[in-house]
Amino acid sequence: MIKQLKEEVCAANIDLQKLGLVTLTWGNVSGRDAGDNLVVIKPSGVPYHSLRADDMVVVDLSGKIMEGNRKPSSDTPTHLKLYNAFPKIGGITHTHSTYATMFAQACREIPCLGTTHADQFNGPVPVTRFLTEEEVYTGYEMNTGTAIIERFANLDVLALPAVLVAGHAPFTWGTDASDSVRNALALERIAQMALGTLQLDPGVNELPRYIREKHFKRKHGPDAYYGQK
Amino acid sequence: MIKQLKEEVCAANIDLQKLGLVTLTWGNVSGRDAGDNLVVIKPSGVPYHSLRADDMVVVDLSGKIMEGNRKPSSDTPTHLKLYNAFPKIGGITHTHSTYATMFAQACREIPCLGTTHADQFNGPVPVTRFLTEEEVYTGYEMNTGTAIIERFANLDVLALPAVLVAGHAPFTWGTDASDSVRNALALERIAQMALGTLQLDPGVNELPRYIREKHFKRKHGPDAYYGQK
Amino acid sequence: MIKQLKEEVCAANIDLQKLGLVTLTWGNVSGRDAGDNLVVIKPSGVPYHSLRADDMVVVDLSGKIMEGNRKPSSDTPTHLKLYNAFPKIGGITHTHSTYATMFAQACREIPCLGTTHADQFNGPVPVTRFLTEEEVYTGYEMNTGTAIIERFANLDVLALPAVLVAGHAPFTWGTDASDSVRNALALERIAQMALGTLQLDPGVNELPRYIREKHFKRKHGPDAYYGQK
Amino acid sequence: MIKQLKEEVCAANIDLQKLGLVTLTWGNVSGRDAGDNLVVIKPSGVPYHSLRADDMVVVDLSGKIMEGNRKPSSDTPTHLKLYNAFPKIGGITHTHSTYATMFAQACREIPCLGTTHADQFNGPVPVTRFLTEEEVYTGYEMNTGTAIIERFANLDVLALPAVLVAGHAPFTWGTDASDSVRNALALERIAQMALGTLQLDPGVNELPRYIREKHFKRKHGPDAYYGQK
Repeated sequence: MIKQLKEEVCAANIDLQKLGLVTLTWGNVSGRDAGDNLVVIKPSGVPYHSLRADDMVVVDLSGKIMEGNRKPSSDTPTHLKLYNAFPKIGGITHTHSTYATMFAQACREIPCLGTTHADQFNGPVPVTRFLTEEEVYTGYEMNTGTAIIERFANLDVLALPAVLVAGHAPFTWGTDASDSVRNALALERIAQMALGTLQLDPGVNELPRYIREKHFKRKHGPDAYYGQK
Repeated sequence: MIKQLKEEVCAANIDLQKLGLVTLTWGNVSGRDAGDNLVVIKPSGVPYHSLRADDMVVVDLSGKIMEGNRKPSSDTPTHLKLYNAFPKIGGITHTHSTYATMFAQACREIPCLGTTHADQFNGPVPVTRFLTEEEVYTGYEMNTGTAIIERFANLDVLALPAVLVAGHAPFTWGTDASDSVRNALALERIAQMALGTLQLDPGVNELPRYIREKHFKRKHGPDAYYGQK
Repeated sequence: MIKQLKEEVCAANIDLQKLGLVTLTWGNVSGRDAGDNLVVIKPSGVPYHSLRADDMVVVDLSGKIMEGNRKPSSDTPTHLKLYNAFPKIGGITHTHSTYATMFAQACREIPCLGTTHADQFNGPVPVTRFLTEEEVYTGYEMNTGTAIIERFANLDVLALPAVLVAGHAPFTWGTDASDSVRNALALERIAQMALGTLQLDPGVNELPRYIREKHFKRKHGPDAYYGQK
Repeated sequence: MIKQLKEEVCAANIDLQKLGLVTLTWGNVSGRDAGDNLVVIKPSGVPYHSLRADDMVVVDLSGKIMEGNRKPSSDTPTHLKLYNAFPKIGGITHTHSTYATMFAQACREIPCLGTTHADQFNGPVPVTRFLTEEEVYTGYEMNTGTAIIERFANLDVLALPAVLVAGHAPFTWGTDASDSVRNALALERIAQMALGTLQLDPGVNELPRYIREKHFKRKHGPDAYYGQK
């Protein structure tokens, strides 16, 4: 089980590079083994092209290393915080993808301007607050997770599988590791589309709610009719 | 005949990815067999890299599945509506290509700002109205087709083989499947050029009509002299 | 001699696609055989990936086809006009490359904003006037050449091997076919850089003339010291 | 030792092209052999795809050619000036990468708008002044180095391994040749992100200093905990 998860998480990390979502080593993917409450994550600072399944690090939900000879991603405490808070998610991706990061740096949520957005995210992609100086110097990565959880107090993590950390970059999640990568890719494209749309019309209206709901629900939930199942 | 059309439509769908016009599974191409009044279309939600001709779905003009083990694209009713309304078109492409989608999201037609545009589209690329809530909840994809047809009431579909659906994305068409893909690619490039041109000069004038007509006609229609035939 | 020139011109046309300077068949390169006063040019509307040296068309300076089974590029009269007017140029490239075309559509010259520009072009890249309706309908492509020549009445074609045709796209030239392609590539990059620079500072100053002259002359002319010769 | 350094510098130059940081021959990398006070640098004007280790030129810190049959990069005097002034750097990269050059042309420093920036550069990326006409005509490349050194009078070259030369383009440096290329790549991405962020919010605030310091120090310096060592 963990062996297969390591392969999936390794492949998902390699996909980040293939899909143009990362520069250098600026991103990481993890996946959860729900049965054993274990998390498999990329090792810190290792280039994607040299990653093998055996390089993946296995940690429990408290962060204790259970398997692996490498140091886990420095962002591991953020991943774990999210897995603990959101029991339904099975994979998490963090990138500094170019266009999503622009919105994170501008501390501006990505408004839902079209059906491309609505197909993946049922509402604007939210932005966290900045961490305080104390939070930064006492458990920075863990507190990044806390700020994300705080931002989702009244939001549905399954309907909005993405967040922008203020001044930083996006995190996305999903049912498993590769689903979280697909959401990272979708996020990057809708960020680029939103930037261009705002350049064409800075006062553009959001997509009417009834179209947004329709598109999200034709792909997700009990009445979905997109795809082969 | 249908076997060959399946291969053509399959290849045209794969081209969407090669040409950078699609992300994930955000696009589909269909082709019409004019003799038998059948339409061949991509199956819903299947990744391009794994598509084979046998995966294509054959439907009649009412949407009845005639051949294939897969569900057709969820956008099939839009394609069929257009084939029924426009007897001269033989292929349709739908994408969420980045720059064309920016204009669709801004509900802004793409003005004809240069000969690159005029070579393919004899006038501004039009935008539909938004669907009403009722239209969205009673046959969304079919009504998308209706809104496109309504927009073309006084326009020539062969001279303007592209439309932007408001808040959504483009549809293009052509003599056959691959011709509609070429128009999707041309549309994406002229959208990008138009965005940049408007950034350089928000009040830029459209191309003089006599140059636009000249360019369109040197490539299309009885007096065309571009190409080898 | 002509056989080798055909191979060079064919390779230069194929380079247009490799370098990302063309979409579909939107561009063409020609080269001149100065000894025989012949010009070799791409056939009209043929995709780059299938081009072979034997597909190239040989014309004399009046446009008479001397060799080849294909129709020459529809832009051939523009190329010939330029070869006749500018005896020192040996190759011409026409593209609709994305960023250079934005400036052509905005009828805005590309100001010399940095040394990247100055390394290739010793001054702003000029824009032609629009052709009149009469010029468009009586020898459009030839009159495009006339408008370019008119624009260069007081300019040095060797110091400024590029022009933007208003509402259309760029032409570049050089000592031979591949040199004109290099100038087309340089033009596209400096157009993109200029657009971004103008977005950062719409009132940005041009590069001081003494730096511009220095950079151009370290690469070109009798005192050049860049490169291996 | 020099043989290995030649291979490293050759590979680093080839990387410039693989990473999309250069067009034509617009960039060069050098590396220093600290023991022998020698510098290995790219030959002038040679395309990256044909570079071999033996093409690299070895010079001493005064610019005297010690090994190699080629002319060194025309920017060699700038590199040497920096190696002489900054004893701790072991590699230098010069490119005209698109987005970083936009900021150089606008004479605008790249503000630190996010953690992507802070991970590599502990503060805004500075811009030099323009050279005077006299400096341009009496040792242009050497004086470019002088202007960079002058700009760093009160800055830490290891905490800010990048500079924008006004009206020109970036130089980056690092512990060795490949480290300077990594900084060139990071610079290009953070320039692109900064441009987009400024388009979303022209008045955006810089990243709080305590977050900037945290991010830089988690990757660099005695308390770094990013990566495998």
